[in-house]
Amino acid sequence: MGTVSSLKLKDNSIQTLMFYLDLFGITVFAITGSLAAGRKQMDLLGVVVLAMVTALGGGTIRDLVLGAAPVFWVSTPIYVLLAVLTAILVFFIVRFYSMPPKVLSVADAIGLSIFTVVGTQKALALETHVVIAIVMGIMTGVVGGMIRDILSGEIPLILKREIYATASLCGAITFSSIFI
Amino acid sequence: MGTVSSLKLKDNSIQTLMFYLDLFGITVFAITGSLAAGRKQMDLLGVVVLAMVTALGGGTIRDLVLGAAPVFWVSTPIYVLLAVLTAILVFFIVRFYSMPPKVLSVADAIGLSIFTVVGTQKALALETHVVIAIVMGIMTGVVGGMIRDILSGEIPLILKREIYATASLCGAITFSSIFI
Amino acid sequence: MGTVSSLKLKDNSIQTLMFYLDLFGITVFAITGSLAAGRKQMDLLGVVVLAMVTALGGGTIRDLVLGAAPVFWVSTPIYVLLAVLTAILVFFIVRFYSMPPKVLSVADAIGLSIFTVVGTQKALALETHVVIAIVMGIMTGVVGGMIRDILSGEIPLILKREIYATASLCGAITFSSIFI
Repeated sequence: MGTVSSLKLKDNSIQTLMFYLDLFGITVFAITGSLAAGRKQMDLLGVVVLAMVTALGGGTIRDLVLGAAPVFWVSTPIYVLLAVLTAILVFFIVRFYSMPPKVLSVADAIGLSIFTVVGTQKALALETHVVIAIVMGIMTGVVGGMIRDILSGEIPLILKREIYATASLCGAITFSSIFI
Repeated sequence: MGTVSSLKLKDNSIQTLMFYLDLFGITVFAITGSLAAGRKQMDLLGVVVLAMVTALGGGTIRDLVLGAAPVFWVSTPIYVLLAVLTAILVFFIVRFYSMPPKVLSVADAIGLSIFTVVGTQKALALETHVVIAIVMGIMTGVVGGMIRDILSGEIPLILKREIYATASLCGAITFSSIFI
Repeated sequence: MGTVSSLKLKDNSIQTLMFYLDLFGITVFAITGSLAAGRKQMDLLGVVVLAMVTALGGGTIRDLVLGAAPVFWVSTPIYVLLAVLTAILVFFIVRFYSMPPKVLSVADAIGLSIFTVVGTQKALALETHVVIAIVMGIMTGVVGGMIRDILSGEIPLILKREIYATASLCGAITFSSIFI
């Protein structure tokens, strides 16, 4: 009985941790989407759309592929609002402060690592095969940025710089090996 | 009892109205897809594929995200046939009449407004949060055109010209505020 | 009773045949994805990602649209592993042997015809309308290659060369007319 309770406790804390990680990852990816849109001289609504797609795209595809529809943000609008607010904030901030060009790729790497962990955990929680959980982790991490790059008319960064995908792969494998 | 009957009647008329709006929107978007394909010198089947993707893409993503699979056109092949026939018609018409360049952007705006209303209504009917219903309306309106532009090798029009997305946003909010 | 047994036998042999066709199609499309990635000087993980997207993309969209989620490769990781292994193999082979440029388009045509049959059969097995089954066949055949081309920064081959899509259309219609 003690084990069951502590397991439930552990489960709850993991859920809470994942929720905050998700919020953090969404903020970070919304920032990268807004910056990419700003570079292409998009207007406010272009910035909001690109921020939303970047922040929510990876998790959306993951949920669809796993059959966990409606996807995560349909039942929890806070995710959508967070992405929209971040986009609006970035849109006005970049009018007054110019961001160093490295911000986008650093933010991309942070968002990638967070979403890899969140995605792997979600797949393992649905009891998928470990190979699939790793693929889901990487997918959650890379898809948002890929759509962002395609919509801005670029070849996805992730396909150009091996270091990102490799980092995501290592993260997904490490996380899986801890939790199985 | 009177209220229930009139509510049901209202529900049925809304369903019928939405069905015809959907057919009209599909025709309009199939035209924009065919014109975009024609500009890129695509052949008949390229034209048909681009028309189908533009006409059915937004509603497909909306249904997937909302968990309403199989998507709307799988159970109602008339939607698919309408898109295909429109594409074939446009393919032959543009051989004899040259369209003024404004046709594509006017058709885009009409299709966008129709699909925004249809998408918002469908989401509200599934009892989603109003924020999500607005996002679904915009998504239904803009995704088809975005995929069309990416497949033709362009940065999506919607991300370039704020006016479209703003119009879609206003439409979705207005429609939601009437129906809640 | 004899009919029922022979029907079941026929059903089983079709399932087995489709499984091997699927494996063959995945290998062929993984090869085209790897070759396309190689031409764009992508690194090993870029090659693996592009191979996976090309090999699994068409069937993934088909399953999502048909409401058959989780998609086919989530419950059968062998499909994923096959795509990954093929990508790694091609990555090293092209370092030592240079492929004639025709290999990619021939492989594309083979993969297309296989996936058209597999996709049409899967849709018919789910008792969809024959028009939808044909669309699903073509979709399964062309979507993977389309995503591959977009991710490599090209306009999809399929929209440029009518012969592919026409072939896929004929295949889907023929297959449907045999099985209905």
